[in-house]
Amino acid sequence: MDELEAAVTGESCMRVDAIAKVTGRARYTDDYVMAGMCYAKYVRSPIAHGYAQTIDSTAARALPGVLAVFTWEDVPDTPFATAGHAWSLDPNKRDLADRLLLHRHVRHHGDAVAIVVARDELTAEKAAHLVHVEWQSLPVITSPEAALAEDAIALHEDGNLLKSSEIMANDPLGAISGADHQFSSHFQTAVVQHCHMEGVTSFAWMEEDKRITIVSSTQIPHIVRRITAQALGMSWSSIRVIKPYIGGGFGNKQDVLEEPMAAFLTSRLGGIPVKVSLSREECFMASRTRHAFTIDAQLGMDKDGTLKGYHLDVLSNTGAYASHGHSIAAAGGNKISYLYPRSAFGYHARTCYTNFPSAGAMRGYGAPQVIFPLESLMDDAAAALNLDPVDVRLRNVAQEGDVNPVNHKTIYSAGLPECLRKGRELFEWDKRRAEYASDQGNLRRGVGVACFSYGSNTWPVGVEISGARALLNQDGCIHVQCGATEIGQGADTVFTQMVAETIGMPVNMVHVISTQDTDVTPFDPGAFGSRQSYVAAPALREAAQQLREKIILHAAEMLHQSAMNLTIRHGMVEMTTRPGLTMVSVADVAMDAFYHPDRGNQLSAEASVKTRTNPPTFGCSFVDLTVDIALCKITINRILNVQDSGRILNPQLAAGQMHGGMGMGIGSAIFEEMIIDETSGLIRNPNLLDYKMPTMMDLPDLECAFVESREPQSAYGHKSLGEPPLIPIAPAIRNAVRMATGVGINTLPLTPKRLFIEFRRAGLIKG
Amino acid sequence: MDELEAAVTGESCMRVDAIAKVTGRARYTDDYVMAGMCYAKYVRSPIAHGYAQTIDSTAARALPGVLAVFTWEDVPDTPFATAGHAWSLDPNKRDLADRLLLHRHVRHHGDAVAIVVARDELTAEKAAHLVHVEWQSLPVITSPEAALAEDAIALHEDGNLLKSSEIMANDPLGAISGADHQFSSHFQTAVVQHCHMEGVTSFAWMEEDKRITIVSSTQIPHIVRRITAQALGMSWSSIRVIKPYIGGGFGNKQDVLEEPMAAFLTSRLGGIPVKVSLSREECFMASRTRHAFTIDAQLGMDKDGTLKGYHLDVLSNTGAYASHGHSIAAAGGNKISYLYPRSAFGYHARTCYTNFPSAGAMRGYGAPQVIFPLESLMDDAAAALNLDPVDVRLRNVAQEGDVNPVNHKTIYSAGLPECLRKGRELFEWDKRRAEYASDQGNLRRGVGVACFSYGSNTWPVGVEISGARALLNQDGCIHVQCGATEIGQGADTVFTQMVAETIGMPVNMVHVISTQDTDVTPFDPGAFGSRQSYVAAPALREAAQQLREKIILHAAEMLHQSAMNLTIRHGMVEMTTRPGLTMVSVADVAMDAFYHPDRGNQLSAEASVKTRTNPPTFGCSFVDLTVDIALCKITINRILNVQDSGRILNPQLAAGQMHGGMGMGIGSAIFEEMIIDETSGLIRNPNLLDYKMPTMMDLPDLECAFVESREPQSAYGHKSLGEPPLIPIAPAIRNAVRMATGVGINTLPLTPKRLFIEFRRAGLIKG
Repeated sequence: MDELEAAVTGESCMRVDAIAKVTGRARYTDDYVMAGMCYAKYVRSPIAHGYAQTIDSTAARALPGVLAVFTWEDVPDTPFATAGHAWSLDPNKRDLADRLLLHRHVRHHGDAVAIVVARDELTAEKAAHLVHVEWQSLPVITSPEAALAEDAIALHEDGNLLKSSEIMANDPLGAISGADHQFSSHFQTAVVQHCHMEGVTSFAWMEEDKRITIVSSTQIPHIVRRITAQALGMSWSSIRVIKPYIGGGFGNKQDVLEEPMAAFLTSRLGGIPVKVSLSREECFMASRTRHAFTIDAQLGMDKDGTLKGYHLDVLSNTGAYASHGHSIAAAGGNKISYLYPRSAFGYHARTCYTNFPSAGAMRGYGAPQVIFPLESLMDDAAAALNLDPVDVRLRNVAQEGDVNPVNHKTIYSAGLPECLRKGRELFEWDKRRAEYASDQGNLRRGVGVACFSYGSNTWPVGVEISGARALLNQDGCIHVQCGATEIGQGADTVFTQMVAETIGMPVNMVHVISTQDTDVTPFDPGAFGSRQSYVAAPALREAAQQLREKIILHAAEMLHQSAMNLTIRHGMVEMTTRPGLTMVSVADVAMDAFYHPDRGNQLSAEASVKTRTNPPTFGCSFVDLTVDIALCKITINRILNVQDSGRILNPQLAAGQMHGGMGMGIGSAIFEEMIIDETSGLIRNPNLLDYKMPTMMDLPDLECAFVESREPQSAYGHKSLGEPPLIPIAPAIRNAVRMATGVGINTLPLTPKRLFIEFRRAGLIKG
Repeated sequence: MDELEAAVTGESCMRVDAIAKVTGRARYTDDYVMAGMCYAKYVRSPIAHGYAQTIDSTAARALPGVLAVFTWEDVPDTPFATAGHAWSLDPNKRDLADRLLLHRHVRHHGDAVAIVVARDELTAEKAAHLVHVEWQSLPVITSPEAALAEDAIALHEDGNLLKSSEIMANDPLGAISGADHQFSSHFQTAVVQHCHMEGVTSFAWMEEDKRITIVSSTQIPHIVRRITAQALGMSWSSIRVIKPYIGGGFGNKQDVLEEPMAAFLTSRLGGIPVKVSLSREECFMASRTRHAFTIDAQLGMDKDGTLKGYHLDVLSNTGAYASHGHSIAAAGGNKISYLYPRSAFGYHARTCYTNFPSAGAMRGYGAPQVIFPLESLMDDAAAALNLDPVDVRLRNVAQEGDVNPVNHKTIYSAGLPECLRKGRELFEWDKRRAEYASDQGNLRRGVGVACFSYGSNTWPVGVEISGARALLNQDGCIHVQCGATEIGQGADTVFTQMVAETIGMPVNMVHVISTQDTDVTPFDPGAFGSRQSYVAAPALREAAQQLREKIILHAAEMLHQSAMNLTIRHGMVEMTTRPGLTMVSVADVAMDAFYHPDRGNQLSAEASVKTRTNPPTFGCSFVDLTVDIALCKITINRILNVQDSGRILNPQLAAGQMHGGMGMGIGSAIFEEMIIDETSGLIRNPNLLDYKMPTMMDLPDLECAFVESREPQSAYGHKSLGEPPLIPIAPAIRNAVRMATGVGINTLPLTPKRLFIEFRRAGLIKG
């Protein structure tokens, strides 16, 4: 592909950061160094629940190179919330403030009671080990059930029930019992971790009086600014957050993690730069994880496959602190409510504190956990009724014109039926299904399918806003500042395409400033909820449109032409009705605007737009696998995701997101789990040796396809894309295993250990 | 003063960067470090004129830690101009492009033929010494007269005459000869250097493909961007320039100095960060100096003191390369044309290349050199006619309603008569003058006065443009981005006051982003011509006004009020006719705009404005001094500058600029000169030990006063302020010495050595 060619949205073009990243030139947070930078290391709890009775930092302070040791006694007594949500004017919609910078009362393995700052990292680590703490243990709670027990010790002042959520559409229990058949099962999902390549790292310093600057690997610079200010009791605008290139976040960096601590430390140490980086082990223990859900699911289906109603009763384990816990269980229920909109739907979720590490946002944000039971149970029902699982879904999934029964929003684009049909054909579903039905013996093959629905942002739960600014440079190139954050997903590239298309420029003449700086970058809460391309687009389009008009107006003045007859194509101002007849280049317009003595000025435009639509994305996954019953081993033979994300802005990047999500989905489905001792609450595998993330060698070829519905509420016809590919993987695999073996395994992940338990229980393995 | 109080323009408030600077937290270019930063050192010429015949860098390259050696053979063959002027669409108005990054043909002592890059600075310096060059000497030219000689060797292709300028108003020679009396003299000014505290330093690296970022101590980030791109043949927008805090520039950093070299080096070394810093010695030899002028001045005055006409014939020594040379001699003539507008005026200037170090812009930009002969000759005329020098000036200086005879612009504010009257009284001029008239013996006292006029920017020679952007934060504080650069003069503080006043906020709720980043900072060519507060003000006021209107409109929507009845005072939205009745705070408006689900968005505003007025600033200096004839020593007893800079925006900062300029003026008048050998062209005192800059111990108490004319063309009633205080000092001192001793010394500086020559010639010293 010629990079000089215009690539409007809908065409692939090379990632704008591709060369910076493959040459190693792209600077991430740890690539920034500052003169005199100091390093902080935490003193962490070796127990999952208890108190630090005494603390003695004499030896630590005596170590040469140690600047300071701070304990729970030194930090502000202002509880703050860490969840990366847009702020709300409504106090009832705000995140739960249950964190201090350091706690005497430790609530999970690795909770922090003190922090040491030293001139170098090694000294800080040594000194942290020299801080002597006397611990008093308290009873450990590891499950929501235990947390809710009447005699359970309260982990937080308001008890262990963090949040209870209810969603109800059309009497689900009545619909279920009124259906021809009823199905129910108990499901359990696992605690997994994001395992982004780049760790949790940030540093802060003070330059001007009363102002703190933070550089952080975060998805949410503007939210980090707010929460840091709240945690330190400062004015919001006195915090400045810079977000450089980011090596993945997957929701973990949709939390405010170490930034308030870095800011606190510099504020207490005369403004010197202080870095707070977590090791991989600390990331597992003390950043965030995915919530484990315990689900009682039931479903009513008529014998023709019509879904009459379903109900999910969820217990969510949020661990030690709230983070996103109060929000995720409800969000999961809301996100799936688009999937089967003609069915009654009931959802009840209780989120509980335990002594697990704190769970937070992670790709899919509750949807993977609730799609797993729903799509498993759909499959069980189809099997019981002897119906093709694809047919059953085709009969029930959302169609254009359906209305979401929960929020009563009309669905204007619904490509899921087409996704299912397209996938069925591409996957040779019917042929494979028929062929594998007769498998016997140790190696048995199966196919499985699962669907999902998802939102395109957080509206109306959160206020959705994005901002963009576009500046015309002297050479005709356009700089774009955008509050929405590139975190590796390719946002900057599609933003570039959007602006290029709207103004009429080749993509290589548009340059998106990748680094956010909250002092000057237009406001946007950040990267989460797969909102980036959907919510940023109206602001980008409006700013680009305004700039386009200014360019044309100035060209009209230069040319003595009427602006109404001029347009811009490929960086050239042309007569609207004479394509190819260049009047003047955009570069020449720019030069005239900047430098003509008697007219013009710098041409720029800025837009800030709130988005109040949130169309659903749909998709499905098809899996073909072989189960080795004796070895309890799953081999995926083929996997295909088909997704309706509206118009596809950049097919190559879209495929990249699909591949990433599918790989992560396979990880959660059959490999990954944090092993936390049910008695002690201690984490047994907080490292990438004992926690099994799939590598390229473990993954099959990842196939994907799109159904390009064009969403009419969208600025460029698109919908969300990034998180969803992960969501249907686990149930599709689970359903394929069920077809192959007859055993429906409802506890994730489907590791050999789990398969052995289930196969023995089912009698497939004797002894 | 309570810093929480609103300080509108016209009141003093603490510098916004005061605390950052006094605590040492403010980060200057050399405070920025980068991982893997490498260092460059030049190989410089030990002769003032000649060729590098051969160059051998084998030994340098062999030194461990050396990355590369580049010579004149390796650099782009694209001549570029270094003068920091706004670009012009008119090729005839562009700066002269006579520089390459390295030259084989060296034209001044310290000219560079090669550069070494190494992993550390010491190794780079060692390696530079190991580069062996065989030099071929050529005849050396050190004076404009020699440069213009018929048989002079040509230093550049187009000869040694860089530029000839002519300014003529109303037949000056006829007016002079028609006057009652004629006066003429020959004058010579010295080569001086800026001696900014922070040296010349910049570094560059590449992050994204084909894009280079430069951090530099510069007055002109947007111009550095353009010229670096031109020097390297790159697209302008692919260069990004960041300007941190600056430790003084005084015009030296209104040149593009080492930035193109830093950018070239990183582009040739795979994008690694490379720093190019000049030592103090290199600053003297190879940055810029003030042009030495040789002036033949003549003047015609009637016996009543009416100035009929004056004519200055100038030879300007621009040294080895053009820099600002083509512009400064003409600028000096234009800037003084406001002073005596009812007199005929003739000005002829020829600027010549020599083998002196390159002269460039320096505080006053030609005006000090031409005011010196004019105001000396005015004094000589007054003495000859037995008139009071103040009376003579009062009779002739500009008054409101006068029209500049050169550019035919009306003078709308002219406070110079009032300055002279106020100064005369404050200084007790009449009493002192009468008392000292009778001084005899070795110690003799005298008083002197001198006036000046100056512009407020570069219009219409340069296109004047400035840009500003204002963003409302959640806490009601306002961030301001401004293209005009803070370089120590206090620009950010008065910008803060302007925005605060226009919106209606306390100053401590306005924060100007001090660092310019050409990728995102609104366009403005930079700090020069004392233009900052005058040219930036319309953009700041327009952006502030727009933001104010948006705040009021949103408040009106919140309050169900009509916007026309609302105003903002002290950060509160109030009813226009009910001062003190707060309806809502600006902070509450901001929160609603950001976070209300159904209305509002981020409130921001941006303005880019071209300025096409350029009102003159006026002022005068009064000096009282004692001359010790035997010791040839001048002791300043009292010095007072009175200036009309229109409305004074911040009296404390204005006084600071006056003090700085007066100190610098005293330096140029009696201490400072670069001693350059007339035969060899070698610089004898390129260091702060042998070059005598006055310290606080050498300076008298510096008194200043203002006459606040209110300039009607100005956004806040103000005019230029920063450069002028220096301009009248040398002639005022020279005139006081003349009154004390009867000897008019027309060669600067008035060092003991010079006084000895002149006193002996005059017979005051025998032998």
